[in-house]
Amino acid sequence: MSINNTQLEKLVDQITKQVLAGLQPDKPQPAKSVGDCSDGRCVADRPKEVRQLKEVGATRFTSVPGALPADQEVARLIDHTLLKPDATPDQIAQLCHEARTYHFASVCVNPTHVKLCADLLKGSDVKVCTVVGFPLGATPPEVKAFEAQKALGEGATEIDMVLNVGALKSGDYKLLLKDIASVVNVTHAANALCKVILETSLLNDEEKVAACQIAKVAEADFVKTSTGFGGGGATAADVALMRYVVGSEMGVKASGGVRNYDDAKKMVAAGATRIGASAGVRIVQEASGKKSAGGSSRGTY
Amino acid sequence: MSINNTQLEKLVDQITKQVLAGLQPDKPQPAKSVGDCSDGRCVADRPKEVRQLKEVGATRFTSVPGALPADQEVARLIDHTLLKPDATPDQIAQLCHEARTYHFASVCVNPTHVKLCADLLKGSDVKVCTVVGFPLGATPPEVKAFEAQKALGEGATEIDMVLNVGALKSGDYKLLLKDIASVVNVTHAANALCKVILETSLLNDEEKVAACQIAKVAEADFVKTSTGFGGGGATAADVALMRYVVGSEMGVKASGGVRNYDDAKKMVAAGATRIGASAGVRIVQEASGKKSAGGSSRGTY
Repeated sequence: MSINNTQLEKLVDQITKQVLAGLQPDKPQPAKSVGDCSDGRCVADRPKEVRQLKEVGATRFTSVPGALPADQEVARLIDHTLLKPDATPDQIAQLCHEARTYHFASVCVNPTHVKLCADLLKGSDVKVCTVVGFPLGATPPEVKAFEAQKALGEGATEIDMVLNVGALKSGDYKLLLKDIASVVNVTHAANALCKVILETSLLNDEEKVAACQIAKVAEADFVKTSTGFGGGGATAADVALMRYVVGSEMGVKASGGVRNYDDAKKMVAAGATRIGASAGVRIVQEASGKKSAGGSSRGTY
Repeated sequence: MSINNTQLEKLVDQITKQVLAGLQPDKPQPAKSVGDCSDGRCVADRPKEVRQLKEVGATRFTSVPGALPADQEVARLIDHTLLKPDATPDQIAQLCHEARTYHFASVCVNPTHVKLCADLLKGSDVKVCTVVGFPLGATPPEVKAFEAQKALGEGATEIDMVLNVGALKSGDYKLLLKDIASVVNVTHAANALCKVILETSLLNDEEKVAACQIAKVAEADFVKTSTGFGGGGATAADVALMRYVVGSEMGVKASGGVRNYDDAKKMVAAGATRIGASAGVRIVQEASGKKSAGGSSRGTY
């Protein structure tokens, strides 16, 4: 990782001020009033957020990451993924069969396949995960909420939503909070989990920190690195940064380009608690010392 | 184009039978009954569709394509496009400014930017086009309809929807018809246009023909080649095939990889009546003999 803990603390502090300033009410405030965060003092007016952010201590960074467990335990970290637009029901059925066989955490599929997966995985320990606003994240909050609601109604219990990257880049943190919270709310109402995809390859470190903080304020369950469609995937440095910012009470999912057991080990060492991969079978086989069949990786995810 | 007209007629006939068979009701039919299309005879039971398909004559293929008009007329064929997920409101405002200046047919943006564009383009001759189920097409019909409805309510008057590629590939033509019709219906109810994106780079010729036919049955206004995110763009051969199948009463939009005036000319010669491009300014400048500034192409679209 290229940033040391002192630099991280400074970065998080700096972005904290910006994010909280961006979440202030719209009505004009006189300069240097309670609502003016230009000097950073108004942070103290939001004790809950400050507490959350202060909890992001350097000790969390070193305490959270672990070693990837061997054998079947590895499978419980993996969202077994097939998100290609041309995936057919037969291919999805094969994915579900593999997920049952290896006891993956979930299958991660496009919304059109949720019902099929829920039917095929009934009675198993494998969850149905789907994606919302995927992969561009550029739909309004109401559309993302509707899409999530529909998937939850059809049997999804984990929702991976792509945040509004343009809103993040333009500093429109209010829209970003609404964007994420709209999906978190319907997801939690259904007792399901919500993961927030940052698409890290499009972001600088400041934007990654801001996104993690807003995901945390919105009470999402996970932050996730990548869609696998954005021209870049998970890196250990990004996973470590995200873990540092969200602390230990949220999950971090590494996804995009995790193709084998070595990749997975690096991500877990950096702080990932979930792996999104199309190479789940290979990862598990390598973990248990079996030679990989090599045919289970699907595309670039 | 690699297929001659005789081959095209055969291909269209063959796919016609398959598509119409796939649209039969679900209840089991005795073999060789009226509902059994295995011998192709039941085509005659659907006179409207057959008429529509028979209208797709070889003459249409030669009569529809034209030559690209010069100067400002070119602009009226162009959907000026910015669909990158990290586009900011400032970049979208610049897009709208260019569209007003050059009188493009529309701006084509992600749903999150529709309202801004509708505001900025009020009183101009430039329409607001947005995308639905984009770019994977793998969401249920209800979600696509809701997404379209929301965009129409915010000021979009053209909806480019991505069809369900997996449904097409698995021959689930009923789902595909529902998929397309769900968006066409809400779009037409708002007096707007609906374009159906095939993502041709993922399809073989049979699938392209079937998709065009189903788009036609669903009464869509245009078929469109590509999202620009699927690893391939418009080809003259695909545009010609699509024009052949839909006849002259539907539009054909060539999109993805149309980067200059030469590309645009080829697409129009093959039958395109709309061009989706991020290089609109360059195309218009080249058409009018001005040297392109070269900076207007955005990404790979």
